[in-house]
Parts: sequence; C-alpha cells; structure tokens
Amino acid sequence: MDNLIYMDNAATTRVAPEVKRKIDAFLTDHYGNPSSLYSLADTARQEGLEYSRNSIAELLGVQPKEIIFTSGATESDNLAIKGVAFAQDEKSHFITSKIEHHAVLHSFQWLEKQGHDVTYLPVDQNGFVQPEDLRKALRADTKLVSIIYANNEIGTVEPIGKLANITKEAGSLFHTDAVQAFGKMTLDLKNVDLLSASGHKIYGPKGIGFLYRKQGIKLEPLIHGGGHEGGLRSGTENLPGIVGIARAAELNYAEMTEESKRQSALRDKIINNVLKIPDTVLNGDSDRRLPNNTNFSFNYIEGESIVMKLNNFNIAASTGSACSSPSLEPSHVLLAIGLPVTLAHGSLRVTIGRETTEDDIDYFLDKLPGVIEDLRGASPFST
Amino acid sequence: MDNLIYMDNAATTRVAPEVKRKIDAFLTDHYGNPSSLYSLADTARQEGLEYSRNSIAELLGVQPKEIIFTSGATESDNLAIKGVAFAQDEKSHFITSKIEHHAVLHSFQWLEKQGHDVTYLPVDQNGFVQPEDLRKALRADTKLVSIIYANNEIGTVEPIGKLANITKEAGSLFHTDAVQAFGKMTLDLKNVDLLSASGHKIYGPKGIGFLYRKQGIKLEPLIHGGGHEGGLRSGTENLPGIVGIARAAELNYAEMTEESKRQSALRDKIINNVLKIPDTVLNGDSDRRLPNNTNFSFNYIEGESIVMKLNNFNIAASTGSACSSPSLEPSHVLLAIGLPVTLAHGSLRVTIGRETTEDDIDYFLDKLPGVIEDLRGASPFST
Repeated sequence: MDNLIYMDNAATTRVAPEVKRKIDAFLTDHYGNPSSLYSLADTARQEGLEYSRNSIAELLGVQPKEIIFTSGATESDNLAIKGVAFAQDEKSHFITSKIEHHAVLHSFQWLEKQGHDVTYLPVDQNGFVQPEDLRKALRADTKLVSIIYANNEIGTVEPIGKLANITKEAGSLFHTDAVQAFGKMTLDLKNVDLLSASGHKIYGPKGIGFLYRKQGIKLEPLIHGGGHEGGLRSGTENLPGIVGIARAAELNYAEMTEESKRQSALRDKIINNVLKIPDTVLNGDSDRRLPNNTNFSFNYIEGESIVMKLNNFNIAASTGSACSSPSLEPSHVLLAIGLPVTLAHGSLRVTIGRETTEDDIDYFLDKLPGVIEDLRGASPFST
Repeated sequence: MDNLIYMDNAATTRVAPEVKRKIDAFLTDHYGNPSSLYSLADTARQEGLEYSRNSIAELLGVQPKEIIFTSGATESDNLAIKGVAFAQDEKSHFITSKIEHHAVLHSFQWLEKQGHDVTYLPVDQNGFVQPEDLRKALRADTKLVSIIYANNEIGTVEPIGKLANITKEAGSLFHTDAVQAFGKMTLDLKNVDLLSASGHKIYGPKGIGFLYRKQGIKLEPLIHGGGHEGGLRSGTENLPGIVGIARAAELNYAEMTEESKRQSALRDKIINNVLKIPDTVLNGDSDRRLPNNTNFSFNYIEGESIVMKLNNFNIAASTGSACSSPSLEPSHVLLAIGLPVTLAHGSLRVTIGRETTEDDIDYFLDKLPGVIEDLRGASPFST
C-alpha cells in the first residue's frame, strides 16, 4: 500500500495519526459508559463526550447543545429530513435539488411515499441551484429546504447563504448536507437551521458524524431509546468515534487556510493538464469549487474502465460517488447538469487530500493520457 | 485507572487488545471505502466487511446476508420494530414485555403515537414472561412480538425458544434484543426472525452492532441512502467497528464454555455473600440468569449513594441500566417484578467480565458491608 497514489479523498480518507491516538485512548483506557455514575464514566463524559461537543461547536461558532452526534452523515441527513417531517401534524411540502446525495434524495422519496409533497429543483450546467427557482418553489406549507453545501461528485459549492436567506424569509427551515465542505472551507451558518457532517471525509473514523440543529428547531428522533443526545438520538455514545471526529475537525480547521490554497493549486494543475486530452470536459464550476475536487468526462469510454486501468498503476480514483459505484447507473448529478448519457458514463472523479503531493499529481498526469488513449483505441465508439 | 475494580460490564466493556489491533489496521492501513472499485477498496470489502459478516454468521449458524451491520443495538431494535411496522400497509398490533430495554419500549411507544396498538406483557417476580400470557395476547393482526433475550438489569434469561415457537404458531414475527446474551451463551435462533446485538458489551467497540434478519422478512429501512447492507441500512460502512465486533464475537465464542462456568461461580460467590447483609434481596432468578449478572436491593438506602461510596473504593458498579442513570427514576424493570418503590430505589447491579478476578470479588465483598452499614446509619428510614 505504501506507494499507493490515493486520489479518492471524497469517498473516504486515511485516519490521521493524531486522531488514531485519541481513538485508541478511548477504546482501552477511558472506556466508561458516559451515562454511568463513577469516575471512569466521568472521564468518558467530560474529556470525551463534552470536550468533543464543545470543540466542534466552537469551530462552527454555535452552542454545544446544538451538536447531535450520529453514526454518520447519512443518518444526520435522515434525522434532519424525517425528523422535521415527523414533527409536523400534517403532510407538508419539502424542497431539495436534483443533485443531492442519495441519503437526502432517498429520504425525500420515502417521505413522498408517506404522503408528503417534494419539489426537486433543477441546476444549471455547472451544478448551481438558481435562487430564483427556489423562490418560486417555496409555498406556505413548505416545511424544509435541503440543499447540498458542496456537491460530492462535481465539487460545485452552492450559494448557501443566499438560498438559506430566501428560505428564512419564506418562513421555512433550511438544511444542508455539508459532508464535503465541512473542514475544507468556512461554513456560512447564518440562516442554516440544520447541517450534516461526517468524520471519515476529514481524516476521522468511519461510523461517526453529527447534525447541527439550531436551538428550538423541533425534531422527532429517528432512533428512540435511552434518551441520549438531548433525547434526539439514543444509543450508547460512540466515544472513540466522537473524540475522533472532534480531533479530526480541530486539525482540519487549524490547517484550513493553508491547505485550501495548496490543494486548490494542485487541483488547478490537474484540471489544466487533463483538459489537454482531446474530447474531455470538466464537470462542475472552475471557480466556485471544492479545493480538492476534480471531475472530468472523457468521450467514447467508460469511467469504470479508467478507474480499473489507473488501479493497475496504483492510483485510486473514482467514477463519482462511492455509494453508487456498484450500480453502474449513470450519475444523477451528471445527468442533472445536462451531460448526455455517453459522457455521464465516461466520468472520472479525482479528489486529492492532505497527503497528496505534487509528485503524486505529476505521476497521475503522466499516466492518465496513455490510459485514455488505450481505452479509446479499444472502444467501438471512438472515431 | 490501573487498580480500578470494574464491575459494570453490562454497561460497557474495555476493548480487548486483539480487537483493538484489528480496529487500528482498518483506521490507517485498510482505509478504503468498500463501495469503491480499486484494490484498497477490495481489501476493505473482502477482508473487512465480508470476512466479518461471514464470521458472525458462522458463529450464529445463519447466512451472511442475514447480518445487517448497524450503529449499535439501539438502532437494531429501532430498525426491527419500526422496520416491520413501516413494511405494513395498515396499522397493526404488536406485543412486547414491561421489562424491555428503552430502545424497545420507546420504539413501541412511538409506534402507538403513529396509530399502532401495543400490548405490554407483565412478568413474574423473577422477571419471566409467561408463555400463557403471550398466547392470550396474540391476535390475528399481531405483526411482531419482541421479548428481551436476557434482561440487562436483573439478568433473567427468558424462555425465548418457547416464546418464539408460540409466536410462530400464531403466524407473527419474533424479535429479541439479545444485547446481554450475545457472546455469553448459545443463542436459540430456531423460531427467531430478528435479533439485535451490540459490540461494546462483548469487549468490542462502541458505535457498532448488528441486526440478524431471517431471509425473506420484509423490513422498511430506517436510514435511507446509498443502499448499503442489502438496501436495508445506508451509510458508508463503519469498517473499524465492523472488524471490531467480529473479532470480539470470535473471542467470546471461543471462550464461552469456560468463561461462562468461571463467571457463574464468581457470580454465585457474590450472591451468597451479599445476601448475608440484612434486609437485602436478590433481584432476578437465581438459576436462569446471565453468568455475569447480579442485582440486589438494599432496604432503607439509595442505589446512587452505594455507587458513589463504592467509587471511593475504586469499584465501578451501577444502580441498573446505564441509560437511565441520569434520570433517577426507579427502574421500570424492578417495578415490573413487583418491588416496592423504596426497594427499587436501593438497587445495585454488579456485572463481572473477562477481566474480573477472584481477588476483585474478595475486595468488593470486603468493602460492601461497611458501605451499606454506613449508609443505613445515616438514613432516616433505617430502624
């Protein structure tokens, strides 16, 4: 694994050494159940649970009790969306976009089956939700708007401040899935009521995430039980995960300015060079884009084949979202920005991270053109 | 912490060194997202996810695809109960007992708010559900019966085989919360359709559990998204947690016969000696009881005070379930077995584990009588 060039940091990341040390301490030394009454439990509660909650709250500029720990961002999305829906007495209206993560889309599709009404906003060719479209879609019975902060496939950063403000003016709640944005950019929470984040996208562990919930927002829990997390998410707290996500967030925020600049430069080097390959397009915006994300479509060939060929060169990349990889369906995000099915099938997502070096990029840029040329030579669609 | 006498293994356990090693490898070496397409992801999928699923399935004697990984037993309970309810087209009838864990009780109370009908069976003075009571409660529209395998507070092992058989004959589904039983005794799954288990009660990590779901049982997912776990539980798989619970289960099953015998002997030594203290009763059955559980009520005093005094001697014990500790409400389990409120308030749960030695027991038995005497001397209720 040592010489692996890992370029799929949007799928998951390697846990940072500092994070691992913190996790280890809570597996074997501070292993108490935070709900118990003795000293071992006090340590778990104070140095683990409450320290971590305070730390994340401080990074976001919110109150500690506004952070609800969950098993990951998929659960956070489900809790935000279904939690608002079940807190209503009647069937309501919801608004989201066509380029959301499946955790959001499938939660809304399920709400539709329960009798709720959902509007799916289109996006433009760079993946932006149009504020005017949101304004027109809002109704008196719209309870919640959910728009992804930065898209997980094409990296487009949505105008969240503007969208949240429009939503607030209409008297609805605003949720954002900020999985890819959290830890990589300063988040604008001004009119945001609910925000989902994950540990394993920021060099923290898998199986942990949180939902920021502005004080006073009514939510019905998704998981009932012992009344943990202020009664909103039951189950013995995942202490190793919780201290892990907090430590990971602290490290990300500390290096954010510098890393964002460094990764943006590497990202642009990738974009500029890959676009020299003929019949290649960049998916997503070239400017308002995550510092670590690139996404291309190569005409005439399949994204899966590119990923497999790169794997032979010890380069790990992706066709799009890891979650939809096994399905081989064309990406709903790429179709929503107007790509024809053939181009949507030929997509490659390359997402760099803290450990990515300029040498890695050079190696990748050296190998990719040959990979594309080989595949196109073998393709019946190639001219 | 080194000289801590940890006697609260029903609340949580210290992660075993072998389990920690496995977790660590999947935090930093095999960190791929199992849904991705390259070699790093193959390792995560095959050596992590599928190896662990196969291993647990083999221990239980079931099919690998019948194991659904969750964030813990609270989620497993919610998924089993709400999953069956939401898979129905109409409002239905459910049966459970009065001594279930809150994850089960509160899930059912929530279903009642959604318009379903729930029967809560009483138990006898040792905590046993009476098969005849279940038989009488079953109706044509009863969709699911949920009875705890072994009680988390008083250790009573329910006649699950008999109850599941009666349920099957009536054409309903049977779920059991086996959190305290899994890894400590051979489970009778013959007529069990759904079973919840947890990692952190068996020297595995917090934040991971599973639901055994017999093939063909219709469940609506609780958490929608990328379609992981056969579409029944979405979210990037918690690989470090999954390999952790599997390794923990393997270790527990390997030592089960021997440890069950060793711990039962230590348990009985505790019971025989603690009952020499005047005005003391054993809660739960003396025979059909978890090998690691003891639970006593001491008249005239509060359980919380006993726990605090024991903490001063570096002994960690509990008043009952960790989940309900902060509430200071008398235990619903102790009230259900007919204890008067005063005795229910004076309860102490001592749960031993793999690391408990005879010396630990002797130290505890040396300190406890003085603690009780001191507290009774200070109590206005004492005679």
